[in-house]
Amino acid sequence: MDIREQHPDLAEWNALIERCLADPDPEPITNLDPGDERPYDAVFVGGGAGGRFGAAYLRAMGGRPLIVDAWPFLGGSCPHQACVPHHLFSEAAAELDRMRWFSDELYFPKFDPSRAGIKDLVDLFVAGRSSAHAFMNWQTKEQLDVEYVLNARASLVDPTTVRVAGRTFRARNLVLGTGARPVVPDVPGIRRPGVHDFISLVESLDAEPARCVVIGGSKVAMEYGSFFHATGCPTTMVSRSPVMRSSSLHHVDEDLRRYVVDGMRRRGMEILEGAEPVTVEGVGADGPVTGVTVRLADGSTRRLEADMVFLGLGERPDTTEARAVLGIEVDDRGRVVTDRRMRTSVPGVYAIGDMIAGAMEMWKARKSGVTAARNIMGEELEFDVSEYPDFLHTTYEVSWVGLTEQEARDTRDDVVVIQMPPYVEGLDTEHLPLPCAEGSMLYAFRRPELSGFQKLVVDGTTRQVLGAHHCGYGAKDAFQYLDHLIHRPEGLTIDELGWMNELFLNPEHFVQLSRLRAGKGRLTHL
Amino acid sequence: MDIREQHPDLAEWNALIERCLADPDPEPITNLDPGDERPYDAVFVGGGAGGRFGAAYLRAMGGRPLIVDAWPFLGGSCPHQACVPHHLFSEAAAELDRMRWFSDELYFPKFDPSRAGIKDLVDLFVAGRSSAHAFMNWQTKEQLDVEYVLNARASLVDPTTVRVAGRTFRARNLVLGTGARPVVPDVPGIRRPGVHDFISLVESLDAEPARCVVIGGSKVAMEYGSFFHATGCPTTMVSRSPVMRSSSLHHVDEDLRRYVVDGMRRRGMEILEGAEPVTVEGVGADGPVTGVTVRLADGSTRRLEADMVFLGLGERPDTTEARAVLGIEVDDRGRVVTDRRMRTSVPGVYAIGDMIAGAMEMWKARKSGVTAARNIMGEELEFDVSEYPDFLHTTYEVSWVGLTEQEARDTRDDVVVIQMPPYVEGLDTEHLPLPCAEGSMLYAFRRPELSGFQKLVVDGTTRQVLGAHHCGYGAKDAFQYLDHLIHRPEGLTIDELGWMNELFLNPEHFVQLSRLRAGKGRLTHL
Repeated sequence: MDIREQHPDLAEWNALIERCLADPDPEPITNLDPGDERPYDAVFVGGGAGGRFGAAYLRAMGGRPLIVDAWPFLGGSCPHQACVPHHLFSEAAAELDRMRWFSDELYFPKFDPSRAGIKDLVDLFVAGRSSAHAFMNWQTKEQLDVEYVLNARASLVDPTTVRVAGRTFRARNLVLGTGARPVVPDVPGIRRPGVHDFISLVESLDAEPARCVVIGGSKVAMEYGSFFHATGCPTTMVSRSPVMRSSSLHHVDEDLRRYVVDGMRRRGMEILEGAEPVTVEGVGADGPVTGVTVRLADGSTRRLEADMVFLGLGERPDTTEARAVLGIEVDDRGRVVTDRRMRTSVPGVYAIGDMIAGAMEMWKARKSGVTAARNIMGEELEFDVSEYPDFLHTTYEVSWVGLTEQEARDTRDDVVVIQMPPYVEGLDTEHLPLPCAEGSMLYAFRRPELSGFQKLVVDGTTRQVLGAHHCGYGAKDAFQYLDHLIHRPEGLTIDELGWMNELFLNPEHFVQLSRLRAGKGRLTHL
Repeated sequence: MDIREQHPDLAEWNALIERCLADPDPEPITNLDPGDERPYDAVFVGGGAGGRFGAAYLRAMGGRPLIVDAWPFLGGSCPHQACVPHHLFSEAAAELDRMRWFSDELYFPKFDPSRAGIKDLVDLFVAGRSSAHAFMNWQTKEQLDVEYVLNARASLVDPTTVRVAGRTFRARNLVLGTGARPVVPDVPGIRRPGVHDFISLVESLDAEPARCVVIGGSKVAMEYGSFFHATGCPTTMVSRSPVMRSSSLHHVDEDLRRYVVDGMRRRGMEILEGAEPVTVEGVGADGPVTGVTVRLADGSTRRLEADMVFLGLGERPDTTEARAVLGIEVDDRGRVVTDRRMRTSVPGVYAIGDMIAGAMEMWKARKSGVTAARNIMGEELEFDVSEYPDFLHTTYEVSWVGLTEQEARDTRDDVVVIQMPPYVEGLDTEHLPLPCAEGSMLYAFRRPELSGFQKLVVDGTTRQVLGAHHCGYGAKDAFQYLDHLIHRPEGLTIDELGWMNELFLNPEHFVQLSRLRAGKGRLTHL
């Protein structure tokens, strides 16, 4: 249907998207500008985070983009299956965790584990997710003035041509941004009902699980595992590498990691490191999951009961069509090879987001889309994806940026650490309610050992802040700006940081802790 | 007692402080360095935020400071009666608010208002507050190497001399930092039992209040009133000026204010603006409070039932001794007059923190202390307290920095507003679950009208960010850095902001919203 002249409001968009998602033979949604006779500067194949931001930027610069997407909405997997549900689940996990620790204390009722359900939260998410989709369709059309064809799968024809919804579109450039899919390991029984990844969890969970095994040890595994466990579904993590130390995570400080992983264990999660799944067992040959047999670090095997298995082993792009039709080059991990201007091996064809190497995160998706757009519009802009701030959730919010203490020590002579609890041996900090910052005040006063951890790594010679690490609540947003300040050419000194205006109680105490040391000519730990 | 050689650990400090607080005839605690024969560079009279940070900085620079304080602990009123309990209470208010909205939905039990008590949380705070005191005494001695005499009231002798604990201390300078006390209005009955300020609330609340009247409309009134109401104690605010628009708050954007105050009313708080108390009534001549008669905006009077009255009318320093002994100059509101180097009218005497003009906030207290220290040590450093980021709590966390939309329009030709929900007329945003950021995900999916508000004010010509405004959760920490970036000489452009690495879902969406517009040569609203 052509909605160019219709201007649906949010409620109308919501209804239309829901209708399309339920329809087995859906009709394309077209928003094309018949008054613009210019050729397209770029067709963005995939209207997820990267395609939508790239197209919006190209349009803002005066160019003419077109987005095509198989889904009836823009924004991609994030609001449909990935970051948004994860954040809803992690917020619930943090609250359930508090309700459990304070069961029958203060204003908290006796915790009733039968009330908390994974499926309830999944259902809540699925029932509401189209509102965000509706907003993005509305905004992209009405505020960002970008043309699109949705709800129709595009076919690549050549480096300047796609076919979609029975029409052929030619453009000066193609920008490929169709994302990635969760990796499924080659383990017998892995296709049984009850084995989920983050996509199938929201699309097809049909009963409340009673016991879960999570396979993997990186972000998604930690986040979903912590959520499952917080709802009262006992969860075991099976990870080949140490949890939170996989190759896909950089700059993880060992003290931060220990605080986070100890916190998961303290809450009763079983974590098997150096372990891997051998078979997924179930009812009959291909019936529902009943357990997983794993090989442990010592070589022995162990059977874990489970009616849900969750895969958190990372994602890989599907480049089949791009390779077959365009002959595009991919690396040994299946990702499209690009230069720093997002140009692939095929002239005129760009790739962005989760299709290319680097962290599969929102900042990279959107900024790679914008980088493609700006280069297409004539700028010579490079985008370096190698340094960035990062975060994950357990029942905490964990954020970090820059060098770990060890990375700093490996490359500098004089490294100063400023942290809470303080950097001293032997102090009875288990009962120290600091960091007692917003979000952890109740812990600070009743369970101080749960109130968080934070560390600033400083070069004692140059006085530059090298890294910042935080486990608690409420600091993640600030790490965007810390990343900017630390990585700008002149860096951020402890003196400049210590002269900022803190908003006390600040979730991380970096401003005031820096101030307590900044008067020293020769810096020392705090 | 002399604890110089004792090195108490945190548990020992905690016990000692508790013992001192319970002792009607307490013994001074002295931590003096007999090996340092230099004269003191400064005696800090008052070891609160300003005195402690000032002394620590002076010591870090190689000088010799002494702190004297009447309390047996350092850190002042913040961790004992002010910011720390406020944050504990506001965190509880936010959680109680959520538990009430979601009563008997999802994992939330049916909300039981009889479980939530003001007194429970006051008791929790009082039972635990000495842990933070213990930490500050320990840190100031063992890590910051600052001398102090605690638990003994000092007397001013002359501009270079104080007497404390039977000893006389001379110093090159005095730094006065003894804080401020809540203002008590001249209203009949205002001294009745049941009339509280934030100090007496934690020191003497002896029964759970059933109905509260808050007098005042600024931060403390909004914060404590919202807390009382969230616990289930119906609360009426009586404010002469419009709530959140008192002269003590600057840069409050009207859309932000409306969202915040509407949110309080939506939760059932009664807010009487343009009203003032006439009498506080009670049992007999000076028995417990039973109600307040107020004069309303239309001149009529109304009686409000209440068994608690809370005063949120600001604070004033006690300068009696400084005026009598030193002849120090004060302004028409009773605050010590200083220049930007924190020098008073008396040579060699400095004043800091809540004793001087400006916001009574932590950043000002600590940085004024440091400013005094650095000037005493020979730097010519000025500290301008006129521009700063700010925040308050209701059941939300509310943060703001820089210009409001109206302030920008008053001084610029081309003002661009970027906000969530978007800056358009007539869109059905009541059902738009955006901003759906961390901390408000549950609201976004079930009660979108409660999910927050955010606005960025930009100069369309220079592309500089002029102001940022946020109501939600998790963004306050970031506003410290936004303040720094906006107010540094080169400012912060929308282009630079839009090229930062967002950590999605970021509680405020300023990075990505900026990016959606930054491609435009001529900026427009979003």
